[in-house]
Amino acid sequence: MSSKITPLSGFPEWLPSQRLIEQEILGRVQRTFELYGFAPLETRAVEPLDQLLRKGETSKEVYVLRRLQAEDGGTDDTVVKDELGLHFDLTVPFARFVLENAGKLQFPFRRYQIQKVWRGERPQEGRYREFYQADIDIVDRDTLPAHYEAEIPLVIGDALGGLPIPRVKIQVNNRKVLEGFYRGLGIESTEDVLRQVDKLDKIGPARVSEGLIAGGLSTAQAEKVLALAEIQAPDSGFADRVKQLGVSDPLLDEGLAELVRVVDTAVAEKPGLVVADLRIARGLDYYTGTVYETLLEGYERFGSISSGGRYDNLATSGRDVFPGVGISIGVTRLLAILFGRDALTASRAVPTCVLVAVNSEEERPRSVAAAAALRRNGIPAEVAPNAAKFGKQIRYAERRGIPYVWFPGERDSVKDIRSGEQADADAATWTPPQEDLRPVVTGAV
Amino acid sequence: MSSKITPLSGFPEWLPSQRLIEQEILGRVQRTFELYGFAPLETRAVEPLDQLLRKGETSKEVYVLRRLQAEDGGTDDTVVKDELGLHFDLTVPFARFVLENAGKLQFPFRRYQIQKVWRGERPQEGRYREFYQADIDIVDRDTLPAHYEAEIPLVIGDALGGLPIPRVKIQVNNRKVLEGFYRGLGIESTEDVLRQVDKLDKIGPARVSEGLIAGGLSTAQAEKVLALAEIQAPDSGFADRVKQLGVSDPLLDEGLAELVRVVDTAVAEKPGLVVADLRIARGLDYYTGTVYETLLEGYERFGSISSGGRYDNLATSGRDVFPGVGISIGVTRLLAILFGRDALTASRAVPTCVLVAVNSEEERPRSVAAAAALRRNGIPAEVAPNAAKFGKQIRYAERRGIPYVWFPGERDSVKDIRSGEQADADAATWTPPQEDLRPVVTGAV
Repeated sequence: MSSKITPLSGFPEWLPSQRLIEQEILGRVQRTFELYGFAPLETRAVEPLDQLLRKGETSKEVYVLRRLQAEDGGTDDTVVKDELGLHFDLTVPFARFVLENAGKLQFPFRRYQIQKVWRGERPQEGRYREFYQADIDIVDRDTLPAHYEAEIPLVIGDALGGLPIPRVKIQVNNRKVLEGFYRGLGIESTEDVLRQVDKLDKIGPARVSEGLIAGGLSTAQAEKVLALAEIQAPDSGFADRVKQLGVSDPLLDEGLAELVRVVDTAVAEKPGLVVADLRIARGLDYYTGTVYETLLEGYERFGSISSGGRYDNLATSGRDVFPGVGISIGVTRLLAILFGRDALTASRAVPTCVLVAVNSEEERPRSVAAAAALRRNGIPAEVAPNAAKFGKQIRYAERRGIPYVWFPGERDSVKDIRSGEQADADAATWTPPQEDLRPVVTGAV
Repeated sequence: MSSKITPLSGFPEWLPSQRLIEQEILGRVQRTFELYGFAPLETRAVEPLDQLLRKGETSKEVYVLRRLQAEDGGTDDTVVKDELGLHFDLTVPFARFVLENAGKLQFPFRRYQIQKVWRGERPQEGRYREFYQADIDIVDRDTLPAHYEAEIPLVIGDALGGLPIPRVKIQVNNRKVLEGFYRGLGIESTEDVLRQVDKLDKIGPARVSEGLIAGGLSTAQAEKVLALAEIQAPDSGFADRVKQLGVSDPLLDEGLAELVRVVDTAVAEKPGLVVADLRIARGLDYYTGTVYETLLEGYERFGSISSGGRYDNLATSGRDVFPGVGISIGVTRLLAILFGRDALTASRAVPTCVLVAVNSEEERPRSVAAAAALRRNGIPAEVAPNAAKFGKQIRYAERRGIPYVWFPGERDSVKDIRSGEQADADAATWTPPQEDLRPVVTGAV
């Protein structure tokens, strides 16, 4: 392998010191998911192309695979039978997995899934072609109780709240509230209205209003639609404000009751985490109940770092239907935002806690044995690369942030190279302070 | 998503109970790598196709990507400039990463990398199109001390020896021994001989001898080549047996000294782990020193589950050269072998330790609060899906292997549903026995 190597746009790669931070973040998210009883799942990276293309709007994002020397004589621009593509999210593969393995799973089925996904989009800040998602979903057979919609924000609050990152705010809404309200207003094409409302942040209320009226709404209807979208509240007070708009519809009432429950649960367990925001629509058309978006305080302009919602029709097979609710954390986007502002650091770039010095190459086995003894007690240790002068061996440790250097001798000794303190020690029993054992990740906030 | 869903041959997927085992295995391997001071690295899944194809013999295995709606009008059968393929191992991407980031890395650079790789091969038992590899490598600039070749088996011995799997035996050899010996015999084309010797396990000594003679060796030369290949020893005794064959060459001596060191180090630190086996050649042509293969006791016929070696010329850029040594554990192959024989089991299929029962839907918040209190103490807990009769709620736990059911009440109580014992408990202070906290993975051996 040689020369002219340049990074690939849209395919971020971290240095080991950053990867160490990513692992720490992924590990803490995973542990939180497990604390809530979500079981681990990993699906293959590929799906049949026809499955990936069922939602037409994402077709442009798919990477298609072909074997370099495929027997079938290569590909053309049409979709070849059995052709495979890389998954662009974890929801489509999960739905497929549930259908394929329904007979072997216990329902309701709670799973988490932390994997890379790929999209052939034009790369730009916050958009990547390869990135990590961390998903949870709860699916049931036939029906899924609405209380699960109230559980999702608690999980995300714990998962992200436990990290050395800025505070998060989860914005919740309910598609039944929106659709019921629009229906109650006498609007037939609720989907068109949703699409317009979804643009509020981008183009502002005046232009959304124009769009709504151009789409056939009366001025009065458009005003009500915008009035609903303006409602925000940190507690269930939003429900009265909706009712004051004077629109009534059974679906609206159902949605309000569900949304009140989501907000009440969050207020009881995690005050300040959730805000009802009736502007949130989530473009994807498969959501049918609660929807979630999540903003990072101080980084709101980067958009949602964790989104999802309730879906009733994603996975169906003959008479079987598997409604679910889920959310996805955009881990790579989150990290890229924080790395770009040096808002996350690790105390060292390597796992090593102790560098074992080497007196001479003949005595290397002694150093190897000391390192082995330290490892048996769970202390990450490596042996110096050569028997250079001790000053040079110490600099090897310094450059990597390794805090201790071990010197084998008649009596072994260990030096904290930060303070310079050195003391006799026995590799079979010595332990460093807990905070030195592994690299520590800290945030700027 | 609907109907006609079938598994894809070569793309294994585990059920959550198996994924849980895979995670445990990967986690323990990772912790061992970190104990030896290897830093984490993850490279993108794709590489420019021309980089992947530099080693001609693997070109048939590569999956090429195209964006479904690429602006450049699709692909044909030739290699398009800037075309991307999925990596087929972790060594080629690592070499590229080192060249790309040499200025930001500290050498010698020790890294581990645990990722999926893809190969477009025809699937068969033990061969997959998507599978996990767990790699370690140590690379240095210009020169790499040979003592690192002795360290690799210790890491693998700890990583695999700590798992609930059968014992492993690492077979080591040194390419300098083979090449030096062949040269000392007056053989010019040592590569052809290596290729023949590599077939020993498959076709036996008689046919290898025929192949060698057909390739231009004298009967005496062929006999010596086979005599060398027959040498095996659990200690450095192999060196005398090689010398007794009466061949001398400086490269042979150098290789023998290196191999003695590898074996001696292993005998001192992990007796029984390593065996010198002078038949091992490793087909890949980039190895230049020690080579490793690893067999699982009782599963030898499945071949090596962890292979690697020393390479001097993998990563070069202008005047910079980065020699290295590394090894790769074929995690998916290992798991598939053991799963196929029910040789690995988890004590339960979900992380959940406690199911919190629900008295009535009105009282659900009380159960949610009890679960939150348990989680604050690190106890995985989930709340029952509905307020069914307690017998039914207990069966929900039973079917998933959840050991405890929690009953909120005037005084809360907790029941071990395996023994039937029930006792009053406080969610803020109760803790289960350590062995119940997480699923436990055990092996059949």
